[in-house]
Amino acid sequence: MLHRIRIECMTDTRETTALGFDPERVALLAHEGFPDRAKTALGVLRYADYEVVAVLDREIAGEGHGWQTDYTVSDFVDDDRVQDAPIVGRADEAPGFDTLVIGVAPIGGGFDRSWREDVERALKAGADVVAGLHYRLNDDAEFVELAEEHGARLFDIREPPADLSVSEGRARDIDATVVGTVGTDCSTGKMTTTCELVNAARERGLDAAMVPTGQTGILVAGWGIAVDRAISDFAAGATERMVLAAAADHDLLVVEGQGSLVHPAYSGVTTSILHGAMPDALVMCHVAGRDAVHGYESFPIPPVREVADLYESLGGVVAPTEVVAGALATHDLDAGADEQAVTEYGDDLGVPAADPVRDGAEAILDAIVASTDLDA
Amino acid sequence: MLHRIRIECMTDTRETTALGFDPERVALLAHEGFPDRAKTALGVLRYADYEVVAVLDREIAGEGHGWQTDYTVSDFVDDDRVQDAPIVGRADEAPGFDTLVIGVAPIGGGFDRSWREDVERALKAGADVVAGLHYRLNDDAEFVELAEEHGARLFDIREPPADLSVSEGRARDIDATVVGTVGTDCSTGKMTTTCELVNAARERGLDAAMVPTGQTGILVAGWGIAVDRAISDFAAGATERMVLAAAADHDLLVVEGQGSLVHPAYSGVTTSILHGAMPDALVMCHVAGRDAVHGYESFPIPPVREVADLYESLGGVVAPTEVVAGALATHDLDAGADEQAVTEYGDDLGVPAADPVRDGAEAILDAIVASTDLDA
Repeated sequence: MLHRIRIECMTDTRETTALGFDPERVALLAHEGFPDRAKTALGVLRYADYEVVAVLDREIAGEGHGWQTDYTVSDFVDDDRVQDAPIVGRADEAPGFDTLVIGVAPIGGGFDRSWREDVERALKAGADVVAGLHYRLNDDAEFVELAEEHGARLFDIREPPADLSVSEGRARDIDATVVGTVGTDCSTGKMTTTCELVNAARERGLDAAMVPTGQTGILVAGWGIAVDRAISDFAAGATERMVLAAAADHDLLVVEGQGSLVHPAYSGVTTSILHGAMPDALVMCHVAGRDAVHGYESFPIPPVREVADLYESLGGVVAPTEVVAGALATHDLDAGADEQAVTEYGDDLGVPAADPVRDGAEAILDAIVASTDLDA
Repeated sequence: MLHRIRIECMTDTRETTALGFDPERVALLAHEGFPDRAKTALGVLRYADYEVVAVLDREIAGEGHGWQTDYTVSDFVDDDRVQDAPIVGRADEAPGFDTLVIGVAPIGGGFDRSWREDVERALKAGADVVAGLHYRLNDDAEFVELAEEHGARLFDIREPPADLSVSEGRARDIDATVVGTVGTDCSTGKMTTTCELVNAARERGLDAAMVPTGQTGILVAGWGIAVDRAISDFAAGATERMVLAAAADHDLLVVEGQGSLVHPAYSGVTTSILHGAMPDALVMCHVAGRDAVHGYESFPIPPVREVADLYESLGGVVAPTEVVAGALATHDLDAGADEQAVTEYGDDLGVPAADPVRDGAEAILDAIVASTDLDA
């Protein structure tokens, strides 16, 4: 059985930025959802910049069920990229943490009443609480009062900062190399490719950072702006702000893309990120076998090379860019078929390709290094 | 001297829609600005769907100055497209109106305290008040109370409706012919071209309507959504909603474009309108001699045919579209040079072109009729 350890407040040492919640030690709330219904929590465990000290799942921890209570993440997830951490039933059973992250999203994006106790315990111990729910923590008078009383902060990461402004067209002037992940559709692996690419670059000794533009990316990196929630006029400006901020500290930025230029609903967000970030190189993400926009099945996805041409010509009007690598998600294919699909995808695009989940992002990074002035 | 006529409330006969403020008789507030510093008021007088019964400019009306008080708009503006209307000093000197429109925008977008009396008089008479200022009428407790008390409404037209949602990709399925005005930059005459085109079509007996996407367009048409203020994810959905609503009542829709695909800051808005509206045909607006993005002078505007190709290829991924005509603003050119510039512009684009302010939009309409199934 886990020791009950008092939650330590790390407010004093925590650096703050306009955008970040700066976690160092995180407890991840995933009640009754881990691992299969807690995709966000799993993404955080796989890719987070910070340490996850515990996952909260009272079902697994067996609170009231008499089940075994010394489970850890590795008992449920067989993936060596995933951090291991104890699974506990309640916030006060977790080792000291500075931030509680809500890592499950119930249908409708609400806040489950049964989570209140954990949030309250975290706040009382001075820990920040972070959520990407429709329900705003900052609209909850009780949470706001507790946070104020205990010097903790509430972060609703769906909400962009209130002081966004229009882009000044400055991203092309920075010294850092900027890579954008773009796609043929939503959910084509842009976030995953971004994280794998940052990890591969770091393993190679590069000072690389992700520029997170969506909720899971923000939870993973501990900072960022949900660009799709920004006022349309300011969406490119929000991206630019992040790129300029990250460029001050890093040599390689990988900007997480959203949506697709060929998506009838989200193409405006995609365009804003493309023009706000002005990437030197693009990695084109696609799902093997997908030939129509998901949920918009009467909209075919054009041949991938045509989609790549569109990104290059639209991006190119503000700063030269080219698709230098392809990332193909092959999770729906059998072994053998996946390799062939990656080969065909690379041939169709005319650039090196890989499945970053299956193969890692080494080959993609090689293609980036070969096409930019990145030194690695 | 003008008779002082009691402001009549027309609430009973006014139809309401989710988007519109439905004016029939409008008083236009332009204190100390008419005509040169009241571009919005001038746009309304030139193109509005409704009757302007008076312009409020206390400087011209001479309140307290002993000046002549029977001026009308035509004393200041020599343009037969502009409605004539008396210029009065105060709201209660205007003939009966159902809506007071704020038609000046001070630097910073604030609300001038000296306008309060006119707004209060309008509200007390049950007239709606409409503004596109940074200052929200609906945040002013006194205005809200007066409006409630007298059955009037306050419209902050910068604010999109709260219930926007993502586009469903339905605009291509409507029966109406949809034309989009697009541009090489901001302020290239898209709103003007839209209005001139609608007027030309109506003169030819077509049932045409503007789909207004920006503040002046909304004031002109009496309905619409400021798409650039919508949450980025919903910007295409906001456009789609307007197109579907207008298509139910009209045969030809002209969708007012915003920004430009080659603008580093606003291209996302442009993309959202292009994909939300799915126009059958595009009219490409440009300012003669402009070769860089205004305010972003280090970003050259590509050759106009390349810009047209970009609109066609990006628009074409969701629904076939083509640039069928060009609209060139030649106001900065001398007589003689303007005609030549229009000819060259049409040659460069490879389609008929005109300056809709100088020439009207007949030739542009002809090109649209020739390229679509519009019957006129």
